[in-house]
Amino acid sequence: MGDNEGAGSVTVHRLDTGADASVAERDVVAIEEPLELRLGFSSDNGERRQQSISITMRTPGNDLELAAGFLYTEGIIAGAEDIDSLDHCGPPVPPRGLQNVVRIELRDGVELDLKKLERHFYTTSSCGVCGKTSLDALEVQRRVAVPGDDFRIGRKQLFGLPETLINAQRLFGVTGGIHASATFDSDGRLDVIREDVGRHNALDKVVGALLLDKRLPAIDRGIVVSGRASFELLQKTMMAGCPMLAAVGAPSSLAVDLAERFDMTLAGFVRDGRANVYANPRRVA
Amino acid sequence: MGDNEGAGSVTVHRLDTGADASVAERDVVAIEEPLELRLGFSSDNGERRQQSISITMRTPGNDLELAAGFLYTEGIIAGAEDIDSLDHCGPPVPPRGLQNVVRIELRDGVELDLKKLERHFYTTSSCGVCGKTSLDALEVQRRVAVPGDDFRIGRKQLFGLPETLINAQRLFGVTGGIHASATFDSDGRLDVIREDVGRHNALDKVVGALLLDKRLPAIDRGIVVSGRASFELLQKTMMAGCPMLAAVGAPSSLAVDLAERFDMTLAGFVRDGRANVYANPRRVA
Repeated sequence: MGDNEGAGSVTVHRLDTGADASVAERDVVAIEEPLELRLGFSSDNGERRQQSISITMRTPGNDLELAAGFLYTEGIIAGAEDIDSLDHCGPPVPPRGLQNVVRIELRDGVELDLKKLERHFYTTSSCGVCGKTSLDALEVQRRVAVPGDDFRIGRKQLFGLPETLINAQRLFGVTGGIHASATFDSDGRLDVIREDVGRHNALDKVVGALLLDKRLPAIDRGIVVSGRASFELLQKTMMAGCPMLAAVGAPSSLAVDLAERFDMTLAGFVRDGRANVYANPRRVA
Repeated sequence: MGDNEGAGSVTVHRLDTGADASVAERDVVAIEEPLELRLGFSSDNGERRQQSISITMRTPGNDLELAAGFLYTEGIIAGAEDIDSLDHCGPPVPPRGLQNVVRIELRDGVELDLKKLERHFYTTSSCGVCGKTSLDALEVQRRVAVPGDDFRIGRKQLFGLPETLINAQRLFGVTGGIHASATFDSDGRLDVIREDVGRHNALDKVVGALLLDKRLPAIDRGIVVSGRASFELLQKTMMAGCPMLAAVGAPSSLAVDLAERFDMTLAGFVRDGRANVYANPRRVA
């Protein structure tokens, strides 16, 4: 099997307890390559500038959604209308012939806080760094209303999400390991499904797809993720306006804090006909 | 149960298919809080400067190792001798009373390439961004010799690593989900074991512990990780001088490329009495 988008072929030696020798075979792994985001914007004196703002290791596919979603969930743009153009640039690079740079030109007049690009986003000079500071920073950054109370999902529909997700994944079956994120509605139906070796990237792709499709804030959708629920995944879910995150794995303390603070529903360990709800269980009917 | 280092208590509503109502109980989750690294160094004119270089979401515990390991695996310092002092700074912050800032003072005269702190590390202006470029950058960055051929591990010992690791984890049992990394010797015995909500952090803590203990390069040790094998985990393993990475999960394409290029052994899907070796199987006897 040759390369196809997101998966590539390698040589593998399979070892097991039963056989003495190993045989070299072909196998399929998830492709991981760097993606550079280059941002074009107007500086204070009106001149256009360009700056490389991020390099992320990602699985190719839906790169433009990833770029748009990253800019939105990091608070750099306020909506799709801030983007003037968005496309790959540069020639395909060997050995896989991928374009690994996306250039985003912002509209003239879009205000840009370059400090947000410095990874010092949660810092304050006074109190050091604490979870509360992070949550305060989010309070300022957040552009969407507090999630409404209308969204509901039944237990049975919640319990079914992981299996629905894994069956819908295009690359999991061939690679045996790649993260996924998806939106779900109150009937437990999946809508936008994206995969990536990086779990943040998978969710940024989902949010970017919603953004470019003018569907944000997505207050009538939850987000399901294949892994654990970290602070950053909750943050991205919140930025998308989704009132609920369901994770197959465990949540972290700061994810629970964030869900409580912003009235979001957080479910973890959603598997095997069970789930733990760590905040705002009223949305699980 | 109250907080203890790395784990904290939250309220959970457990749902399952059997019971109609859910009961609120106490549960334990892995703590995730930001850690800021502040670097003190001599500028070109000899004055001391201080700069915040990174904020990572980490599980508290072994913070100094995390800081030292991060600086080393990112190529910012060449060894423990570059560090003049390393400690927490600032008062404990609510609500958990943690110190979330580590200050690292570099020795006078240590050359510092601030570009490495800009996350543009793998970029070149000419060819765009490609996997090959990333590997070329590593070739330059790498300070250790090509891994020797002496390290060997038996199949049975390799297959046993994941169970040994999970049994040795302090926080996995109480939280149900936290990453781990550890060194192992040729008999499959674990040595330095560290946990974190971030898999990169867990490995940085291991490398930092080796660094501060003057045990780098660790050419007689492999690294085992609880998750998948990404490019960055391979890179950190290589920076530690370890000739082998064994992962419970799947590898990515660039991890396989890196292992082949730098003569490292890469095993994935090490579980249930099986393993796939993706590069240099000669080290598995």
